[in-house]
Amino acid sequence: MHKDKIRVALLGGGVVGGGVIRLVRENAEHLGARIGAPIEIAHVLVRDRSKARVPECEEHWVTTDPEVVFSDESVDVVVEVMGGQEPASGYLRRAIAAGKSVVTANKLLVAHQGGELLRQAAANSVDLAFEASVGGGVPIIRTLRDSLTSDWVDSVYALLNGTCNYVLTRMQHEGLGFEEVVRDAQRLGYAEADPSLDVDGHDAAQKLVVLSMLAFGADVDPERVHVEGIRQVDAQDFAFAERYGFTIKHLAVGRPCGERLELRVHPALVPKEGQLAGINGVLNGALIQGRALGPCLLVGRGAGEMPTAVSVVADVVDVARARVEGATGLLSSAIRPEPCALVPMSELECRYYLRFSVADELGVLGKIATTLGECGVSVEHVVQDSGSAGESPVALQMITHLCKEGHVSAALHKLAEASFMSAPPRLIRIEAV
Amino acid sequence: MHKDKIRVALLGGGVVGGGVIRLVRENAEHLGARIGAPIEIAHVLVRDRSKARVPECEEHWVTTDPEVVFSDESVDVVVEVMGGQEPASGYLRRAIAAGKSVVTANKLLVAHQGGELLRQAAANSVDLAFEASVGGGVPIIRTLRDSLTSDWVDSVYALLNGTCNYVLTRMQHEGLGFEEVVRDAQRLGYAEADPSLDVDGHDAAQKLVVLSMLAFGADVDPERVHVEGIRQVDAQDFAFAERYGFTIKHLAVGRPCGERLELRVHPALVPKEGQLAGINGVLNGALIQGRALGPCLLVGRGAGEMPTAVSVVADVVDVARARVEGATGLLSSAIRPEPCALVPMSELECRYYLRFSVADELGVLGKIATTLGECGVSVEHVVQDSGSAGESPVALQMITHLCKEGHVSAALHKLAEASFMSAPPRLIRIEAV
Repeated sequence: MHKDKIRVALLGGGVVGGGVIRLVRENAEHLGARIGAPIEIAHVLVRDRSKARVPECEEHWVTTDPEVVFSDESVDVVVEVMGGQEPASGYLRRAIAAGKSVVTANKLLVAHQGGELLRQAAANSVDLAFEASVGGGVPIIRTLRDSLTSDWVDSVYALLNGTCNYVLTRMQHEGLGFEEVVRDAQRLGYAEADPSLDVDGHDAAQKLVVLSMLAFGADVDPERVHVEGIRQVDAQDFAFAERYGFTIKHLAVGRPCGERLELRVHPALVPKEGQLAGINGVLNGALIQGRALGPCLLVGRGAGEMPTAVSVVADVVDVARARVEGATGLLSSAIRPEPCALVPMSELECRYYLRFSVADELGVLGKIATTLGECGVSVEHVVQDSGSAGESPVALQMITHLCKEGHVSAALHKLAEASFMSAPPRLIRIEAV
Repeated sequence: MHKDKIRVALLGGGVVGGGVIRLVRENAEHLGARIGAPIEIAHVLVRDRSKARVPECEEHWVTTDPEVVFSDESVDVVVEVMGGQEPASGYLRRAIAAGKSVVTANKLLVAHQGGELLRQAAANSVDLAFEASVGGGVPIIRTLRDSLTSDWVDSVYALLNGTCNYVLTRMQHEGLGFEEVVRDAQRLGYAEADPSLDVDGHDAAQKLVVLSMLAFGADVDPERVHVEGIRQVDAQDFAFAERYGFTIKHLAVGRPCGERLELRVHPALVPKEGQLAGINGVLNGALIQGRALGPCLLVGRGAGEMPTAVSVVADVVDVARARVEGATGLLSSAIRPEPCALVPMSELECRYYLRFSVADELGVLGKIATTLGECGVSVEHVVQDSGSAGESPVALQMITHLCKEGHVSAALHKLAEASFMSAPPRLIRIEAV
């Protein structure tokens, strides 16, 4: 026994922090049994002392002075639930340098600095755990890290943003437009006042980068991930998708391809009978394909104070147990993400759904089909929205056979300039998951 | 560092054992990094030396003599993949008494003796892990044990038998009868020559008991679980279910109810749009409802050599790491299942689907409805299969409102004796998951 108790400092006393305090106090006895020593809260670092906190938070824990936390040598575990890159990053580096084990729920920080933080943690023989940074309460990271420890991950297809999934689900079920649902989501608290980070896909890209560290040992800058949001998805796209047995989801895809990695975040048509189509509303999900394990689907609440707090506390138990056992550092030293080349999108092979808004003129379909053919893109289904006579523009929707994305892009690039094209052509990838 | 290497003895050299050997050899380096020391196989105990083994199994490991294994003091971890209660139970007890940590994939053994084995392991300060005993490669046990360590489980609804799920899925999609699909499943290797253990629900009941140890801290004899299989489910039931937006799944349900526990295994009508309806074929799945976490769905391959081996190796890493750290016993001492009273089925409250085969006589519907009403059962939907005129018997299918199972049973008991009843009435519970 290397420690007779475990003292935890929380950086951040907001909703997730409050959830952590509540769970630690309510389950103190069981957690102590799992850890092998009693657990107690030492400090709660906050920005504004006057803000209301959960009743389980004792006043004497609360401080606005980081020095109080970092000068306390009795602290074993630092839990960061404040979010943002700074000052969180500086605090965590300081904690690691001082030999504390660290738990964070901060996807932004882990996505941008995870590799570096893991190396620092390994060098200092302390643990760094971050289950809550992706998928809230869904144990995606733990499954990749622990359950698949002897397996090779062939692919990850995930719905990592609850706002996107909520918006697309309502568009699908109610036939509404993007703007309308987003306004409603904002009113209900499912979308931020500025929803860009979510609906433009950057939140999902950060989480995909975190998962890639675990699944593929890859250390990738989130800026390098191909990212598309859901603003361009239209009610017409859902109607067409439905007709051919698909729905539309916002996917984060990670897939090794030789020595390189496909990492991409975008809307996709997925089969209505597939495993991802049924993940609706604000739920998150990940379909992990292990070479030996086969498919493993995990679904649950991707955000929210209590689901996130459950994941944070599970990590606290892990890193605290290692301290009690006097054997810290294994969690961080076993994950050694390395830089990795990405597959350019032009090399992707996929089936594509295409939507053209065209003038209702003779020969337009022929011109589009000819250009696609010249670029090596072969069409499997076409639907031309008949509309009222003379109504313009007309929607022309199609599904291609499997082809290289570079070929489709070249065709769309040419077609975008055609005189009959009344809006930029739209492309949504089709995935068979 | 308490150990400079980890030596593993396998009890059983069959398909799962072969998968474990393959994974350990292929991933030796990564596993060593996770464990903190190199891992090696010391012995493979088999019944028949002449049987073919995976090429990764070295001849000098193989022995038919248990004494060779148990007299080797250098063995750290004993992995039991032989199945059955004896001699597996005796071997594991011997291993635990000798201070070895133990990993088992044996649901029968854990269901019947798990509480006792955990107590023995805790008393000897060694670990006992059994992820592979339920759900093959799906990390259900790990999620209950690790991710939900600070949460309270409100319910578990699970599909724990791949054969049942395969049979019901084909009955649903192809309109076939039970016998026909089972014959096909046997031909394809998805059902045993004697499929009773699977299709009669006892396999699922054993797994439910294992999950209940983790989810509810309950130590329950599998014989006490209410068990119904799928032999009585009929194509007519699927047709009716479909009409009202349901399908039929074989569910294992665990739910605390005050100080008591509902534990039951039976077919159930579940909403087609729900999270369990989409789990098809041989897949297993579990929908865990955590009080703080909310819903968490896990789906994957519930059986098969490699998925099971992945789970076994994940457990080996856990228990091996604890040995390297010199801190064994925490995994077993934190799970302390205790005897628990079960809720009698008569107290269950549910909606019910009922099917009566009746003579095509005037007034039969009235008599059935009257008897149900007298017993306090109120009917929500009725469908009478019109059939050809005079054809007999006629199927009468209905859905009740929420009511006590004792009331429904009483009504069915009375009705079973009615002269117009040409076969025993059938009941299938309806669950809103």
